[in-house]
Amino acid sequence: MSIVYKSEPLRGEAWRRLFAEALPDLPFHIWPETGDPASVRYLAAWQPPEDLAARFPALRVLFSVGAGVDQFDLRALPPAVQVVRMLEPGLTAGMVEYVTLSVLALHRDLPLFLDQQRRRVWAATRSVRAERRRVGILGLGVLGLATIEALRGFGFAVSGWSRGRRDLDGVACFAGMEELPAFLAELDILVCLLPLTAETRGMLNAALFAALPRGASLVNAGRGGHLVEADLLAALDSGQIAAAILDVTEPEPPPEDHPFWSHPRIWLTPHVASMTHAETGGEAIIDNIRRHRRGEPMLGLVDRSRGY
Amino acid sequence: MSIVYKSEPLRGEAWRRLFAEALPDLPFHIWPETGDPASVRYLAAWQPPEDLAARFPALRVLFSVGAGVDQFDLRALPPAVQVVRMLEPGLTAGMVEYVTLSVLALHRDLPLFLDQQRRRVWAATRSVRAERRRVGILGLGVLGLATIEALRGFGFAVSGWSRGRRDLDGVACFAGMEELPAFLAELDILVCLLPLTAETRGMLNAALFAALPRGASLVNAGRGGHLVEADLLAALDSGQIAAAILDVTEPEPPPEDHPFWSHPRIWLTPHVASMTHAETGGEAIIDNIRRHRRGEPMLGLVDRSRGY
Repeated sequence: MSIVYKSEPLRGEAWRRLFAEALPDLPFHIWPETGDPASVRYLAAWQPPEDLAARFPALRVLFSVGAGVDQFDLRALPPAVQVVRMLEPGLTAGMVEYVTLSVLALHRDLPLFLDQQRRRVWAATRSVRAERRRVGILGLGVLGLATIEALRGFGFAVSGWSRGRRDLDGVACFAGMEELPAFLAELDILVCLLPLTAETRGMLNAALFAALPRGASLVNAGRGGHLVEADLLAALDSGQIAAAILDVTEPEPPPEDHPFWSHPRIWLTPHVASMTHAETGGEAIIDNIRRHRRGEPMLGLVDRSRGY
Repeated sequence: MSIVYKSEPLRGEAWRRLFAEALPDLPFHIWPETGDPASVRYLAAWQPPEDLAARFPALRVLFSVGAGVDQFDLRALPPAVQVVRMLEPGLTAGMVEYVTLSVLALHRDLPLFLDQQRRRVWAATRSVRAERRRVGILGLGVLGLATIEALRGFGFAVSGWSRGRRDLDGVACFAGMEELPAFLAELDILVCLLPLTAETRGMLNAALFAALPRGASLVNAGRGGHLVEADLLAALDSGQIAAAILDVTEPEPPPEDHPFWSHPRIWLTPHVASMTHAETGGEAIIDNIRRHRRGEPMLGLVDRSRGY
């Protein structure tokens, strides 16, 4: 029984050391080295090999090394393989930082001030108390909940939307497509932290932007596939959307002539909102392998029919 | 006995309503209207009139409508006049937002990413955990303490420096000029929240920058007079300072040909870090007038010999 790691090699070396100490009986291989393929029980990867089923017939668990599993073709995986997404405190902390930074920047008009600086204009804007700034989070998983906690610390008026009903103390929660318009109608800043699935692909589109109050802003720290890029550009042009902070695009990076690079009201960051930390990420997988061996449910287990 | 308000007129109207309800026996005048000058006991102003002593002989308290009193010539004020700076929760909340936004932006390399966007470069940087990012706060007054609290919520390694010794749970505290080099030597990000006095004028200078680790960053949300601008430009050129976020300059705005406007590693905001909120700011002055009438110490009373 062994594990194969197929991702960024430096982190692989760090994980090799963690695994040697925590699970000395489990051989740890860094791709393309795999040992006996028939012994591979666990695979930790961003992109699994294409011939997964034939190559590793004894595979039981595929761990994503990132927060999402949208890069996997879930329908093509053998039925016996469980899929687990990464839940680890470093990844969560990074997302909380990124979203807080983005929301504070929009709340405090930083994109406007940096544009003014380029034009040598010195002009304050009317300040708005955080309590009057309505921030809505699309997606109430681990990342969404931690983000809400941080934003509430600044006093923002936070609400949340998720596919299934959630009940959070002090947070207005909306559920399902039928409640989406009511959620959107009250927002100044919309933050997307959804998983990318067949249902959420293209969800940030013209109809959604039209349901926001005029002049609202967008933060997309989900996936590039959530956003219909042409619809965002049109909404920015019309003034329906005031500004957008995007950490993800599809493809990444955008083509060199893509309008996102030079749009004055788009901030683009190179998919850095949240990264799996070497140490805490490795510990999360070790913990899940122990759970799997004991027959306990793993943390972050994906419902393959649901897609997250 | 009356109060004169001499500052932004819209806020004056809001305060007139607050005062009419809370202190109906105290006539409230908005400059240039003053009623009988001999009856003026309180003045709330950013810039007091030049002939203050002659014009308002019965003046007892001068309230600054902002956090600082450096705009007052403290030595020229009549000895009987007490000077009070603004301490109110809206002003504090604004500063906490601004500094958190600035520190997160520097921590997460946002200035670099926005520069990359302009150059159509998509390249992540190595992520650093907040626990390993050392942030130092110059100035441990009300604003400094509230800022430290917020930064610690993200896990940053925060230290503080003040003129007199402070003792804060979980925060390395340094005091006085002799401990300044030890404070600076350990920082990745330095935040200035000092009051501007004869002692602190020009404190952000070449010697201070040289005492920081190479590649540290600066946030100045104090006063423009704290910074020796030519020294900052030289430190940015040499790489000693990596980036600076400046909310204040001297004068404001900088002259049109000033290098701060176009420097690729300076972010300039138009003195918006923290503003006195109409409602909570008015309530703070009402509370202090009540204290003064009862003979109790006012909150934010300035030690005129110390300058803050």
